[in-house]
Amino acid sequence: MGFMKTTAFAPRESRGEVESGLVLRPKFDAEGLIPCITVDAKSGEVLMFAFMNEEALRMTIQTGKATYWSRSRKKLWIKGEESGLVQKVKEILTDCDQDVIQIRVEVTGEGCCHNGYRSCFYRRVADPDSFALEQAIAEKSFDPEAAYKK
Amino acid sequence: MGFMKTTAFAPRESRGEVESGLVLRPKFDAEGLIPCITVDAKSGEVLMFAFMNEEALRMTIQTGKATYWSRSRKKLWIKGEESGLVQKVKEILTDCDQDVIQIRVEVTGEGCCHNGYRSCFYRRVADPDSFALEQAIAEKSFDPEAAYKK
Repeated sequence: MGFMKTTAFAPRESRGEVESGLVLRPKFDAEGLIPCITVDAKSGEVLMFAFMNEEALRMTIQTGKATYWSRSRKKLWIKGEESGLVQKVKEILTDCDQDVIQIRVEVTGEGCCHNGYRSCFYRRVADPDSFALEQAIAEKSFDPEAAYKK
Repeated sequence: MGFMKTTAFAPRESRGEVESGLVLRPKFDAEGLIPCITVDAKSGEVLMFAFMNEEALRMTIQTGKATYWSRSRKKLWIKGEESGLVQKVKEILTDCDQDVIQIRVEVTGEGCCHNGYRSCFYRRVADPDSFALEQAIAEKSFDPEAAYKK
């Protein structure tokens, strides 16, 4: 979509409207951010987690490319701009109280984590007493140095 | 597990330790919370999103029952305590920079959302211009009034 609308999101209104209504009424936190869970549309795997501000959410909805707010760099972050690992948005969901977004995406390239794994969730808790982790995804699926050098 | 250890989590250390190491070094935000994505271990569906504080994360790991921090009620929230919709933890993952937790659970009962749906993500964006939503999950899977009356 070429032309970017700048329509504001609908206000929060009543709890009934938010939880049962059929209008997106996202809740941004004190810093103007809403959490976003990114899921692989094909495999269903959780790929990553990041935040969006109003503009990032609007861009994600209207351009079809996953766009986040980078808290460390304090700027809009169109995923894949640097690495080429673009996320094409297939579905955008919200939760009951509309304070979380879930996007289901098709990944261009072989993954999404800057460490080279297909998902950022590549480790699991292995021991409940020592809090040791083990690999949940054994192999990297791409060379992050090559991806981020482009 | 009867006896609850109160071992502290390991400190954050270097970026290499956090991102490649095999020790859990969770990052809690300024309010002492870490986001948690809860996934159905069988279907892979994202069920809900909530926050944990240190104690909730430790309890989740050591009791095997999903435990969150309720920001509205400002107290520990053992999921299912009221509704019976307990979440039995099968796997606990963390992401590259260890500032998010993902738990994969088996749900006791027919869902997890207080509105009666199996997942809190029961609506999707249907129109990118008007931000209209549509149902993504058509049917409720349990009667929330009955569940929360128990």
